[in-house]
Amino acid sequence: MRLTLNAIAEKVGGRVKGDGSVEITGVAKIENAREGEITFLANPKYVRYLKDAKASAVIVSADIQEAGNLPLLVVPNPYYAFLKAVLLFNPQGAPLEKGVHSQAIVGEDTQVGEDVAIGPFVVIGKRCRIGRGSILMPLVWIGDDVVVGEDCLLYPHSSLREKIVLGNRVILHCGVVVGSDGFGYAPEGGRYHKIPQIGTVVIEDDVEIGTNSTIDRATLGETRIGRGVKLDNLIHVGHNCTIGEDTVMAAQTGLSGSTHIGKGVRVGGQVGFAGHLIVGDGATIGAQSGVSKTVPPGVMVSGYPAQPHQQELRTEASLRKLPEMLKEWKELKVRLEELEKHIGKT
Amino acid sequence: MRLTLNAIAEKVGGRVKGDGSVEITGVAKIENAREGEITFLANPKYVRYLKDAKASAVIVSADIQEAGNLPLLVVPNPYYAFLKAVLLFNPQGAPLEKGVHSQAIVGEDTQVGEDVAIGPFVVIGKRCRIGRGSILMPLVWIGDDVVVGEDCLLYPHSSLREKIVLGNRVILHCGVVVGSDGFGYAPEGGRYHKIPQIGTVVIEDDVEIGTNSTIDRATLGETRIGRGVKLDNLIHVGHNCTIGEDTVMAAQTGLSGSTHIGKGVRVGGQVGFAGHLIVGDGATIGAQSGVSKTVPPGVMVSGYPAQPHQQELRTEASLRKLPEMLKEWKELKVRLEELEKHIGKT
Amino acid sequence: MRLTLNAIAEKVGGRVKGDGSVEITGVAKIENAREGEITFLANPKYVRYLKDAKASAVIVSADIQEAGNLPLLVVPNPYYAFLKAVLLFNPQGAPLEKGVHSQAIVGEDTQVGEDVAIGPFVVIGKRCRIGRGSILMPLVWIGDDVVVGEDCLLYPHSSLREKIVLGNRVILHCGVVVGSDGFGYAPEGGRYHKIPQIGTVVIEDDVEIGTNSTIDRATLGETRIGRGVKLDNLIHVGHNCTIGEDTVMAAQTGLSGSTHIGKGVRVGGQVGFAGHLIVGDGATIGAQSGVSKTVPPGVMVSGYPAQPHQQELRTEASLRKLPEMLKEWKELKVRLEELEKHIGKT
Repeated sequence: MRLTLNAIAEKVGGRVKGDGSVEITGVAKIENAREGEITFLANPKYVRYLKDAKASAVIVSADIQEAGNLPLLVVPNPYYAFLKAVLLFNPQGAPLEKGVHSQAIVGEDTQVGEDVAIGPFVVIGKRCRIGRGSILMPLVWIGDDVVVGEDCLLYPHSSLREKIVLGNRVILHCGVVVGSDGFGYAPEGGRYHKIPQIGTVVIEDDVEIGTNSTIDRATLGETRIGRGVKLDNLIHVGHNCTIGEDTVMAAQTGLSGSTHIGKGVRVGGQVGFAGHLIVGDGATIGAQSGVSKTVPPGVMVSGYPAQPHQQELRTEASLRKLPEMLKEWKELKVRLEELEKHIGKT
Repeated sequence: MRLTLNAIAEKVGGRVKGDGSVEITGVAKIENAREGEITFLANPKYVRYLKDAKASAVIVSADIQEAGNLPLLVVPNPYYAFLKAVLLFNPQGAPLEKGVHSQAIVGEDTQVGEDVAIGPFVVIGKRCRIGRGSILMPLVWIGDDVVVGEDCLLYPHSSLREKIVLGNRVILHCGVVVGSDGFGYAPEGGRYHKIPQIGTVVIEDDVEIGTNSTIDRATLGETRIGRGVKLDNLIHVGHNCTIGEDTVMAAQTGLSGSTHIGKGVRVGGQVGFAGHLIVGDGATIGAQSGVSKTVPPGVMVSGYPAQPHQQELRTEASLRKLPEMLKEWKELKVRLEELEKHIGKT
Repeated sequence: MRLTLNAIAEKVGGRVKGDGSVEITGVAKIENAREGEITFLANPKYVRYLKDAKASAVIVSADIQEAGNLPLLVVPNPYYAFLKAVLLFNPQGAPLEKGVHSQAIVGEDTQVGEDVAIGPFVVIGKRCRIGRGSILMPLVWIGDDVVVGEDCLLYPHSSLREKIVLGNRVILHCGVVVGSDGFGYAPEGGRYHKIPQIGTVVIEDDVEIGTNSTIDRATLGETRIGRGVKLDNLIHVGHNCTIGEDTVMAAQTGLSGSTHIGKGVRVGGQVGFAGHLIVGDGATIGAQSGVSKTVPPGVMVSGYPAQPHQQELRTEASLRKLPEMLKEWKELKVRLEELEKHIGKT
């Protein structure tokens, strides 16, 4: 594909500054861009990289006034405009042809909507509903009484246990499991007895769940993942948890049972949440934190156990000085003792 | 289903206090229970929740004397009685019809017991034995020479590598892998050379392994998971580990090779164990701990590196005071110096 | 199989010391070895274990001069020689018969090399190339335009997304996913918008990736895993990461996007790397570390946040003394105050 910068501006939005007739053939990151490609710069801090950039045009925000001799496309949100440029040059084809593959198994009384694609060796249980335009890649498994909304994309080897509900435009990556049993046992007579996990999971619209992540069903009631939530790979969500709308979590984070995460929360990787916690809307949780109590809305916490981030930074800074302090400590005690002796004599 | 409280008491055990003729139609957690439902209260600490409870009856322990006007079912272990009530109102049907699906592949010389259910696109190797009443859900894979005991339940996409042995009533959730190669290489000539992993894994009776967890086979000899062990999701058990009977581990915990966990041990989530360790019977390991040395029986440890829990709590408390202490530290040194100067003069 | 120690020496290399005519029937670890078996001792520290060893011969390094009455096989690298002995007594058969199973689905224009084995319910996309001698176990999924080199081994339920490239002799264990979407979203209007992940993943020769590990494709460009890299189970590698040759990582470690790990790096389990980092060649990262900045070549770091290992050990040692220090702290302040008062009087 070949588009002038002016043509890109028409489709992506923004104002061209410089030669709008330059021809663009693709998109690339600033460090890899070659002649003919358009790149982007979201952070004015990195404006120096533009000097060596081989790109033919740059998407920038209004606070970047110039970029050597490169023509600019000035937009309010360069990263979002870049996304649109990527799509422009790389139209996403459907990963599977429409229709039900002859080697797929669809259970009794299951309704399959229009324009659905179901790949080979997919197994769907009884009484399910698969919404219009959804794609079930090969080797997907779906239990009985499951609802899959419209335009969902389920990658190979993902699993939906019985009675799960997915909204529209949900993406489940390979190996994702939704609706596995919560981890619950009643101790009696020195042994653990399994508590039947008869609740469900509801995944709302526009949720994306990363590879090999697991979302446990509720013991009773429901586990719920709110609209627009994005979960990275290898995340564990325990039974009866809820995650609010537009919350994002990085890889390998884990939520113990019955923990409630608010809306618009940002969670780093490898974070652990204890059970029965509440994390307020708009909170931020630093990577590898161990969250053991309620986090108020809008607050950033980090560390183990997690505390307000500024406090954690102070703790870490103090900790680095601790070994030296301990050395001085002994000396100080000796000096104090000598003073006391001296004074005792006087 | 509709049962009087008296009828429930007959089946679940316990003594009715109040109106035993009240009709119950289901079970629910105390915060969700509606009229007609029975709930439970395991911890007297939460007795205040009963005030707002809309339930029609409550399962309690003997130390709870009253619950507003609600009829009680008094039992020795409310959580265990609740489990039985859940089963009473939600009888668990088999998740798969008996018989071998026409689209399953069963290898030569493999024996399939009575009442076994094998779903579509299951692949079983040669010379296996699948015990009476076991259920192999769709898309399960089993290698050669594997033994699966009686009444086991293998969820979709679980894998058993060659020569693995499962006891009776073992539950493997979706994506569980038992018998993958241990992580072992001999460095030689600046490269790593794979050590063949020719040992096995033995999973004893009544073990349950959570979604996408992985149990590596032994290099030589066996990895062994003891009777009644319950593992949560995304857990890693390295080669040649052993886990004693009735031990439970929360999600995302990992065991390095050749580590031996005792019986009745409770392990929190995201714990890491170094290799070649011994953890004594009845020990407790706090969430996110890094266990780098032997843990004696019955002891609770936590932190990174893990230490006795009381000590860890003291360390954490001291740590919170450290920044303030450092501020005073400088002042204190100045004061001491001034004293010394003063005394030097006298 | 039955081989004299002399015959083993001929095949494995090394010098026999003692009775070379002793007959050996198998290999075992020192604590499990029975009569007739050969074992090994890599570390002179454990030479005392030889006293109780029931083995009939021992592979040792030159710095071990004797082992009771046991015949020795003296070699430069006992662990590597042991590996060869294991293979001698346990020749590794192919886990799958050659040929394409009638129940496998191979897409249009896909080339399958000689001596390839493709199991039942395998799905391969269009325009792929599967190299000579590679083995695709049952239930493997491969997207369009994928290249698999020669003599690769893909275990059941592993997935390769579109356009991925594998070198030769790559081993992917069960549930491994290569090429899943990187975790990238552009925030706009209070919601997250998915950045299309149109880059790829290149896995070089002799890489082994552990069970249920996930390697994300690049946003643009490539994620690259260097020759000879060995990854343990449940590892997450984010988009656009690179891992240098002969680097090894233990289980449950995670790399955020665009982090670059050098060659010959050793990484413990449950380590977290922030994004956009560089870790130098030959570095060592302690288990459970949180790496938040560049690590120079050859350096060992550990802790949270990671710091040079010796410093971390000092920090940990100081930390253990902190509670006691705090107790003394108050006393010390009182003593100082008293001195000041006293001096004020004089």
